[in-house]
Amino acid sequence: MAYRDEKLEEEKVFKDPVHRYVHVRDRVIWDLIGSREFQRLRRVKQLGTTYLTFHGAEHSRFNHSLGVYEIVRRILENFRDREHWNEEERLLCLCAALLHDLGHGPFSHSFEKVFKLDHEDFTQEILLGDTEVNRILTHVEEGFPKKVADVINKTYSDKLVVSLISSQIDADRMDYLQRDAYFTGVSYGHFDMERILRVMRPMEDQVVIKESGMHAVEDYIMSRYQMYWQVYFHPVTRSAEVILSKILHRAKELYQNHYEFKLKPVHFLSFFEGSPTLKEYLALDENVVMYYFQTWMDEDDPILSDLCERFVNRRLFKYIEFNPNLQMNEWRELYELFREADLNPRYYLEVDSSSDLPYDFYRPGEEGERLPIHLLQPNKELKELSRLSDIVESISGKKRTDHKLYFPADELRRMPEDSEVKQRILGILYGKEEQ
Amino acid sequence: MAYRDEKLEEEKVFKDPVHRYVHVRDRVIWDLIGSREFQRLRRVKQLGTTYLTFHGAEHSRFNHSLGVYEIVRRILENFRDREHWNEEERLLCLCAALLHDLGHGPFSHSFEKVFKLDHEDFTQEILLGDTEVNRILTHVEEGFPKKVADVINKTYSDKLVVSLISSQIDADRMDYLQRDAYFTGVSYGHFDMERILRVMRPMEDQVVIKESGMHAVEDYIMSRYQMYWQVYFHPVTRSAEVILSKILHRAKELYQNHYEFKLKPVHFLSFFEGSPTLKEYLALDENVVMYYFQTWMDEDDPILSDLCERFVNRRLFKYIEFNPNLQMNEWRELYELFREADLNPRYYLEVDSSSDLPYDFYRPGEEGERLPIHLLQPNKELKELSRLSDIVESISGKKRTDHKLYFPADELRRMPEDSEVKQRILGILYGKEEQ
Amino acid sequence: MAYRDEKLEEEKVFKDPVHRYVHVRDRVIWDLIGSREFQRLRRVKQLGTTYLTFHGAEHSRFNHSLGVYEIVRRILENFRDREHWNEEERLLCLCAALLHDLGHGPFSHSFEKVFKLDHEDFTQEILLGDTEVNRILTHVEEGFPKKVADVINKTYSDKLVVSLISSQIDADRMDYLQRDAYFTGVSYGHFDMERILRVMRPMEDQVVIKESGMHAVEDYIMSRYQMYWQVYFHPVTRSAEVILSKILHRAKELYQNHYEFKLKPVHFLSFFEGSPTLKEYLALDENVVMYYFQTWMDEDDPILSDLCERFVNRRLFKYIEFNPNLQMNEWRELYELFREADLNPRYYLEVDSSSDLPYDFYRPGEEGERLPIHLLQPNKELKELSRLSDIVESISGKKRTDHKLYFPADELRRMPEDSEVKQRILGILYGKEEQ
Amino acid sequence: MAYRDEKLEEEKVFKDPVHRYVHVRDRVIWDLIGSREFQRLRRVKQLGTTYLTFHGAEHSRFNHSLGVYEIVRRILENFRDREHWNEEERLLCLCAALLHDLGHGPFSHSFEKVFKLDHEDFTQEILLGDTEVNRILTHVEEGFPKKVADVINKTYSDKLVVSLISSQIDADRMDYLQRDAYFTGVSYGHFDMERILRVMRPMEDQVVIKESGMHAVEDYIMSRYQMYWQVYFHPVTRSAEVILSKILHRAKELYQNHYEFKLKPVHFLSFFEGSPTLKEYLALDENVVMYYFQTWMDEDDPILSDLCERFVNRRLFKYIEFNPNLQMNEWRELYELFREADLNPRYYLEVDSSSDLPYDFYRPGEEGERLPIHLLQPNKELKELSRLSDIVESISGKKRTDHKLYFPADELRRMPEDSEVKQRILGILYGKEEQ
Repeated sequence: MAYRDEKLEEEKVFKDPVHRYVHVRDRVIWDLIGSREFQRLRRVKQLGTTYLTFHGAEHSRFNHSLGVYEIVRRILENFRDREHWNEEERLLCLCAALLHDLGHGPFSHSFEKVFKLDHEDFTQEILLGDTEVNRILTHVEEGFPKKVADVINKTYSDKLVVSLISSQIDADRMDYLQRDAYFTGVSYGHFDMERILRVMRPMEDQVVIKESGMHAVEDYIMSRYQMYWQVYFHPVTRSAEVILSKILHRAKELYQNHYEFKLKPVHFLSFFEGSPTLKEYLALDENVVMYYFQTWMDEDDPILSDLCERFVNRRLFKYIEFNPNLQMNEWRELYELFREADLNPRYYLEVDSSSDLPYDFYRPGEEGERLPIHLLQPNKELKELSRLSDIVESISGKKRTDHKLYFPADELRRMPEDSEVKQRILGILYGKEEQ
Repeated sequence: MAYRDEKLEEEKVFKDPVHRYVHVRDRVIWDLIGSREFQRLRRVKQLGTTYLTFHGAEHSRFNHSLGVYEIVRRILENFRDREHWNEEERLLCLCAALLHDLGHGPFSHSFEKVFKLDHEDFTQEILLGDTEVNRILTHVEEGFPKKVADVINKTYSDKLVVSLISSQIDADRMDYLQRDAYFTGVSYGHFDMERILRVMRPMEDQVVIKESGMHAVEDYIMSRYQMYWQVYFHPVTRSAEVILSKILHRAKELYQNHYEFKLKPVHFLSFFEGSPTLKEYLALDENVVMYYFQTWMDEDDPILSDLCERFVNRRLFKYIEFNPNLQMNEWRELYELFREADLNPRYYLEVDSSSDLPYDFYRPGEEGERLPIHLLQPNKELKELSRLSDIVESISGKKRTDHKLYFPADELRRMPEDSEVKQRILGILYGKEEQ
Repeated sequence: MAYRDEKLEEEKVFKDPVHRYVHVRDRVIWDLIGSREFQRLRRVKQLGTTYLTFHGAEHSRFNHSLGVYEIVRRILENFRDREHWNEEERLLCLCAALLHDLGHGPFSHSFEKVFKLDHEDFTQEILLGDTEVNRILTHVEEGFPKKVADVINKTYSDKLVVSLISSQIDADRMDYLQRDAYFTGVSYGHFDMERILRVMRPMEDQVVIKESGMHAVEDYIMSRYQMYWQVYFHPVTRSAEVILSKILHRAKELYQNHYEFKLKPVHFLSFFEGSPTLKEYLALDENVVMYYFQTWMDEDDPILSDLCERFVNRRLFKYIEFNPNLQMNEWRELYELFREADLNPRYYLEVDSSSDLPYDFYRPGEEGERLPIHLLQPNKELKELSRLSDIVESISGKKRTDHKLYFPADELRRMPEDSEVKQRILGILYGKEEQ
Repeated sequence: MAYRDEKLEEEKVFKDPVHRYVHVRDRVIWDLIGSREFQRLRRVKQLGTTYLTFHGAEHSRFNHSLGVYEIVRRILENFRDREHWNEEERLLCLCAALLHDLGHGPFSHSFEKVFKLDHEDFTQEILLGDTEVNRILTHVEEGFPKKVADVINKTYSDKLVVSLISSQIDADRMDYLQRDAYFTGVSYGHFDMERILRVMRPMEDQVVIKESGMHAVEDYIMSRYQMYWQVYFHPVTRSAEVILSKILHRAKELYQNHYEFKLKPVHFLSFFEGSPTLKEYLALDENVVMYYFQTWMDEDDPILSDLCERFVNRRLFKYIEFNPNLQMNEWRELYELFREADLNPRYYLEVDSSSDLPYDFYRPGEEGERLPIHLLQPNKELKELSRLSDIVESISGKKRTDHKLYFPADELRRMPEDSEVKQRILGILYGKEEQ
């Protein structure tokens, strides 16, 4: 039997707290899960620093990837005998679902910003480069790795296949909303996925939703909205992200200034220099990063060592509402005052802004690649969701941004009570009446 | 206000997926949670290698410790106005609950066996030594750290206090059964804790359960039974433990034989030598261990590098049922054959036996320190649980042991088909009819 | 000890699927639950005809009333030591919570419309009249029944007390959303009540919500929105309500026309005549109504017997979208055609319109009695919810109405295919392209 | 297309709180659900008087019947391509699952005992008699009603089919344990049905369970054990059953003694006379019974009126432990004393004994019709469950009986304090030290 059609003698299952069971029958899927590149995802947390806010959020991208695979598997089971669906694409969809996050590195968000990397590039490299995953996919068919890469890259010709993995209501989002809600323990994030799966219909170039399922979709979109503001953009999590970025910046700067590290940061060198190879990239998982942070707590550079101590022992920065667009002067003044107070403002003062994309996604047209959700009406016509749903309409236009200013409140507290600089800083931060 | 009575201005809560919220009002508790020794528990998994079997089980001991604290907090709220309960002991109980697992190191089970350590000793050292935790507790009262240590050590004079933290139905067990069930996703581990908390009653020297709550307790004990066999003793998890132990053994042996490590295992040296200081012990969390394992994959020693590769990439040993007491001859023969096949049997052949304690606990008398569960009857008499419950009675006598033989099936598969050694090994392992 | 302060020797609990346990310590509450007027609520379904759409929705108002009591009990536990809260009002609140729905009759909605009754009047009568409930309340204190009645009637002087029972986010709504979601099995209706209870704060004349709980309140309002459209206004449920109303109308009409019922409708006579006494009102529960409907299936009047058969055996009317404001001509035409077809349009053709109140409630000012939800900001100022929440703002202005036209599709189907009347009716109902 | 193969154009679903959705594709199933005999099940509670103990247990047999159907549907989906399974039997299984409880009358347990009826006979009559259900089944195939009846009657030739509906681990039990747990809200009743369904395997003459699913089956059996003792045999529920039986006995006795009822009990006459026709049987649902009970509260016979008042207003009998086998003398004495006290002991004194069948079922051989659960071992051999499971073994031998004596404690309380009879009665009931 061809490898692509090979079935396991007995179906294997993974016990999954979100979907109850993840079912695997295909030998290819089984082999991919066993590959070292896929196993590496166990060493990258799904939600980065969120576990410092929600202690349950310690789950890995391995978890999530299995979940996305399982959702696509269930969707395709429903599609089996439907018009527009080409059963030939089944294995391709499953592989793309399973592997779509393969290139994620440690604390992706901060790493990518500081080192100017893109995990999507690495996903492509892993699929197409000299890896176990590539060998397994090539064994299916010459050119199969490229197909998988194209689906994940949204450049595959069959747009229906692409939309299963990346669209406004794809398996990726449906898994992470539920999974992140489960592990954090928040009460948001619930929606009736079973119903959504039942009302999904394949069309020529996209998956659409039967109109009768509109309310379940509304619920899903409200879940996203709540999860973004309650979990993903939580200001405490962002405080940890700020510190994390500062550590990476500082280490890089020290390296560039020929600082002598007590422990040579072997794993980081190529990152500092700007062009890690695939092998170097894969070697740097979150355990390794944490190992360095713990080690750097003993470095002589006071900034690096302090920031690492903060991250490891969770001594985070505090925050206040602060709109940099409106408060330019305060910002400049604070910057100066921090310098006077011997707190390097490049590392100890930061504005972080989070913008709410979730309900802006749903405007067709504007963002080239993002397709709207279409509802299939009883008369077989398609209608864009926000034209039928008041709630979605109401939130789909409004971009919302949250600005926070982060700083080490503990350092300020430690300054002598009669310090004028301290008083002026506190005056700006908290106003007169407080503190 | 005395530090011990200080309350936070506003109650703080942690969102907890198992107990919904963990509530903190006491400044002391808040400070302890923020201490570096307590934060370290985020870097030690609650279930060691179980995440390699149940992918959801990535939660840390930090999680669990907060949960135990919360359960004790709820119990004490019910006890407030009850006879036998001394409200003076409240803070002591809360601290002991929060800190009872403080000394756990990485993958405790294997580490303790290989390096002959005991996490309970380290818990005592952290409480009594030069640590942030000690400073916070001492701030409560001179001698308070010792009290907390005594409660955890079960030597505290007030046995009622001890029994809240360590008994057959203590807060520790109630938390971990539910938490581990939640994160693994298994359907066992559920019992009606709310009801058990409601029927707990303080007595002079122990917590007892009102007889009307007997069925909830039965359910709890059945949960334990199922969790032990379905989760804690899962043979795949034990396969990972076997490999982990072998890695530690091998590294230690190499060190003792003056092997030159490419990367000097600084963090391990004092462990190899047998007497890590508290500081060294605390520095070795699971991130650091994993960092070494990943690095050792590049070591020249083929055994160390192979074992590490197995652990990191989850290439586990396979297993068969094997009773070493009854199958001495097979064991000896296999040992010889492995040697002939150039598979060092000291590292590639292992019997692991797990013994089922859960329902043997409940026999009063035998195990000095373990108290039976007592039911409080309407006539105010106490009766040992198994005398009233058929189900508990039925399982409380029977010790059950499970033996498995672990070996690298992949290595055997790779040997030439016509190898006689291979055939003889397979013959012993699988019998004639299979493979 | 005064009756009002009497506690049960041992707390009693009711196992409740929604709140897990309902706790009773007060003798007064225990006695009220045991009264015959409160037990009667077991014989009135919480959701009327909804069980014909969602088969799980067979729960009674007894269920719900206990739930509202329990929520208020939990709120007051949090209020105990708070400013603005007068512990003297505790028992009053609990009684009002428990008894707020006492006057509900069978299938209240239809009954009240047809017989021009108001269940709120009967609640007042039960509290103040010659009943077991009145005797228990009077035993607490002369004038106590009147106080309870005033709280339920929203005329009590302490507006804070009133707002616990009747406001935009009161215990009543919080219970029924969760309870109705639980029994129907829909995935809407979930919100984080535990958090809402924690952020409720008593003020002089209302309960307010700390701003930090805003997202939980948003979630609650979205739940209401979804429950209204998905469950409460479900068109199939409304079909059953239409038939129910028609039965009552027909029976009353027959009675007024001196029709000779085979079984004299003793229980209904005073309803037909317009002024049931309290005793007569209480005697007519849903079992009795159903008994009559089943009996009336054998009446000679073909309309009464057909409608009863439809209700009892769930042969409901079908429906189409139909806006009576825009489709006056179609309506008139259909009305004529039904008459021609010998289907009495007064009983077999009906437009039902449901208006969505949930998110219109939240506009302060317009509806005198309805207070907006206020958020308590860190600076101690109050702000109306929709001014801080985009989502609530977005739905709070828009009234939405759903119109459906109901008719017996089975009768139409049974008419001869070549009937011109039939063809014309179908033409209007379904247009040309369908059927 | 033949009626038996007809599919609905679009799959219909019922929202079910236990199984989330019940799916219907077959026209035959859809028609059966719509039949009046099946709709009647909405008017018969699943758990009789249990709602007087657990207020959530107001769900009907309609609910449960849909659930059993859904479970069988899922099992058969798994069986589709398996050896031993004959897809021809699919519709038969679904019909038998749906209709297996069709003959249940109001409060079956008491009714059957008092009137010497058997609901299983009526199930057969409904299937084979002049009913809508029979017409639908006959439309499938001449003789099909008989086949369905045989499956339900366990006399059908294909024992595999029978075992799906009636065996130790059949769809019936799996549904009611979960459903009754859900509606009562107890925490027992949970087991991993999804896993059990996955490990079920069809064999020649029975369904067996793969050995790897043994622990899920253990959990299921423990659920049964707990549900029996915590819910089904709850002493308060049995108190209501005792009163119910007494009412029926009294009414029958009065009728036989030519008592003149104010309202002629038309619906009961044939029951009193011992041979209701099918039509009469079907007319007497729980609404009708409750209507009579409420009406009889006004009867002149003091016993009938008192008992009805008790049932309707939940003034139940109290109970004590009482073993009639050991306490013959007390029984005789009480009987005499009640007579002296003018409390007719035939109606006001009753011993109710409940015997625990659940874990006695599992002994093969003894009860002819009950087959043991067989586990399918990896070597393809079958082994009876209790031989592999310690827990099941431990409970499978022990029959447990619970005896309670019921009596109207309120009447005793109302007797003058100095009454000697009262003192003697209380002495026997409560001993000297209490009351």
